[in-house]
Amino acid sequence: MIQIQRRMERINASIITIGDELLIGQVVDTNSAWMAQELNKSGIWLRRRLSIGDVKEEIITALEEESRQASVILITGGLGPTADDITKPVLAEYFGARLVMHEESLRRVTQIFERLNRPMIERNRKQAELPDTCTVIPNDRGTAPGMWFEKNGKIFVSMPGVPHEMKGMVTHYVLPMLQQHFELPFIDHRTLLTSGIGESFLAEQIADWEANLPAHIKLAYLPNYGTVRLRITGMDTDKGRLKKDLDEAFSKLIVLVKDWLVTAEDISLPEVVGKLLLEKQETLSTAESCTGGYLAHLITAVPGSSAYYKGSVISYANDVKNQVLQVSEETLQTAGAVSEETVRQMVKGVLAVTGTDYAIATSGIMGPSGGSTEKPVGTVWIAVGNRDNVVAEKFTLRFDRTRNIEITAGFALNMMQRFLRQQS
Amino acid sequence: MIQIQRRMERINASIITIGDELLIGQVVDTNSAWMAQELNKSGIWLRRRLSIGDVKEEIITALEEESRQASVILITGGLGPTADDITKPVLAEYFGARLVMHEESLRRVTQIFERLNRPMIERNRKQAELPDTCTVIPNDRGTAPGMWFEKNGKIFVSMPGVPHEMKGMVTHYVLPMLQQHFELPFIDHRTLLTSGIGESFLAEQIADWEANLPAHIKLAYLPNYGTVRLRITGMDTDKGRLKKDLDEAFSKLIVLVKDWLVTAEDISLPEVVGKLLLEKQETLSTAESCTGGYLAHLITAVPGSSAYYKGSVISYANDVKNQVLQVSEETLQTAGAVSEETVRQMVKGVLAVTGTDYAIATSGIMGPSGGSTEKPVGTVWIAVGNRDNVVAEKFTLRFDRTRNIEITAGFALNMMQRFLRQQS
Repeated sequence: MIQIQRRMERINASIITIGDELLIGQVVDTNSAWMAQELNKSGIWLRRRLSIGDVKEEIITALEEESRQASVILITGGLGPTADDITKPVLAEYFGARLVMHEESLRRVTQIFERLNRPMIERNRKQAELPDTCTVIPNDRGTAPGMWFEKNGKIFVSMPGVPHEMKGMVTHYVLPMLQQHFELPFIDHRTLLTSGIGESFLAEQIADWEANLPAHIKLAYLPNYGTVRLRITGMDTDKGRLKKDLDEAFSKLIVLVKDWLVTAEDISLPEVVGKLLLEKQETLSTAESCTGGYLAHLITAVPGSSAYYKGSVISYANDVKNQVLQVSEETLQTAGAVSEETVRQMVKGVLAVTGTDYAIATSGIMGPSGGSTEKPVGTVWIAVGNRDNVVAEKFTLRFDRTRNIEITAGFALNMMQRFLRQQS
Repeated sequence: MIQIQRRMERINASIITIGDELLIGQVVDTNSAWMAQELNKSGIWLRRRLSIGDVKEEIITALEEESRQASVILITGGLGPTADDITKPVLAEYFGARLVMHEESLRRVTQIFERLNRPMIERNRKQAELPDTCTVIPNDRGTAPGMWFEKNGKIFVSMPGVPHEMKGMVTHYVLPMLQQHFELPFIDHRTLLTSGIGESFLAEQIADWEANLPAHIKLAYLPNYGTVRLRITGMDTDKGRLKKDLDEAFSKLIVLVKDWLVTAEDISLPEVVGKLLLEKQETLSTAESCTGGYLAHLITAVPGSSAYYKGSVISYANDVKNQVLQVSEETLQTAGAVSEETVRQMVKGVLAVTGTDYAIATSGIMGPSGGSTEKPVGTVWIAVGNRDNVVAEKFTLRFDRTRNIEITAGFALNMMQRFLRQQS
């Protein structure tokens, strides 16, 4: 029986994202943040994230610099079929490899084109040509395969920049291969979500507990839209001991934050709301003005949400508020569309239209225009409730349109989960 | 009269973002994309973007490496009042400076605290201590001033990581100072959007044109959900000549891609739909099942969308489809919720409910569960239309839930813009 010796040594990683689109600001690099999270969960420490253009010299400089700083270099981008995609030939040259046709990859690419019923041209065939010194990483979601190189004890992995393809590759191939290669220590996490208490006050509340945490367990604060997520992460060569230590620290933490605890599971706010509704076997609808569908989107992004979520009326125009949601003409004219009375009536209206047990309503001025002295940009009313009781709250936000929409949706879900908890 | 000699020499920049939160994936780096756009528009070429942690050695390594590659190094983050914010003392050390109280900055910080009616503690006072060798950049939106250093002909600018504060500083101080310092060449872009043709086929179509582009004009492909954006970028010391060359290349490109052209402006698909509606002075509503509000969200994320978008009925449950949108019980039972008949009736229903001129409807199975042999996960029906005419199309997607929702919304907007164009 083989005993794998797991190492406590810290493995450093660098991410190199390649593509001119990252340097002209056309694309926000969400890939790096996702990869950072996944590496972190696997016990690999991300040390640097670098973005460079589709330029040979810069790719080579980056490979040299990053491999001086890290043992694992994850590379994304530049593997497409067009002329500006040069990552593959540059890597082949850097690792002294020849590009040869990889039959298995060619079969995959051919199948994809057959399934799409599209003719395959030379450019597409070429995507299956790969450096002869690399380990090919299958792309289950697209045409460009990934490549795993080893040089001077360092690992280099090249993947497509398409987020969906990269994510599949990292999850199903790259992380398991890294785990095996480095014999990483076991890493595990416990996560809970609080609401109604700020980061600094929470820190005061748990200061003694934090000071007494064993050295191999670390705490992170993750504040987001009126909630703070606390995550403890432990690292140990012994899996059983790690579980015991984490459980012990976590159960003490739960007691300390019990007054603000939303969930002791690692789930999102829309999932918390969904879980509460499933437990009660009750249903939810939404009536959105200023969030314009974003709240419904967060709720329906959760698989299985159709079991408790029935739908929404997005009443962007006042006549939809009036005719579909029965918000009174008088309220709209005197109090206005952004008012406590309006969101309360929107809750009642959408409960009637959809026949659900609970509803959320939002109305506000998200900017950049539409504000007034009395109701400046950022003024938001949110109401949550059921047939018997509706709670409304006013917020004043001071961000841009996108962020104001996101924050409003977050606050609305938080109000709903609190309301649901008070019903039981 | 002073003649500024503009230089064709390319000024390269690097961005260094500092903060542990960037390395654990807690925060998506949106600052870099914004700064990249602004630099680019000013004729400064962003060569590298690097994110590192709040670690002295790594900050110093980054300063050295990036100043070898670029003439301008923009640094954000690590200027806050807490213990992990070490950027300022590290920079002072790196540039051989002493931290001294900057009276003007102290006055500003004091004013901010007075205005917020909050007590000012030593930590806050210390934010006004600045290196004695830097040019101080005022922060009109927060407490941490920016710093401009020059060393060996290179410019280093340190700014806070708070997006709103950094943006004010870049726009009002840093870019004008850089323009003056470098006498930059002019940079300009032309962008168009195509639909209904893949990246590789488009590349074939315009290969000759691309091969004949002058050296100072570059082409980029930006594919996204069934559309491909093409952008050409030119650089010249003569503004008039640059405009002429770009216009000439762009008008040839437009002719080559005319069969697939959506817009010759640099706007998104929701903006294209909005623009067409504004021109016609007509209105839009949506009826969403599988996209669950995401389509409405994309439409309402555009500032000013309330001028043409009236709202949506998100009919996640069949009884909402039936009772609010008047999809017939018979259709729901025989053809089913994911069918051509259903989406056609959803269009008619939401037109009636909202009184708009046009509507879009979606219904599909986004996964991971809910599929059947006859209608597997990824089956989607989309309809677009007005009172006289409705067009419906079926798609079969093969991604995960999130991506299926995004792609469906993209396809739906694309069908709508095509429909709107055919009406004129």
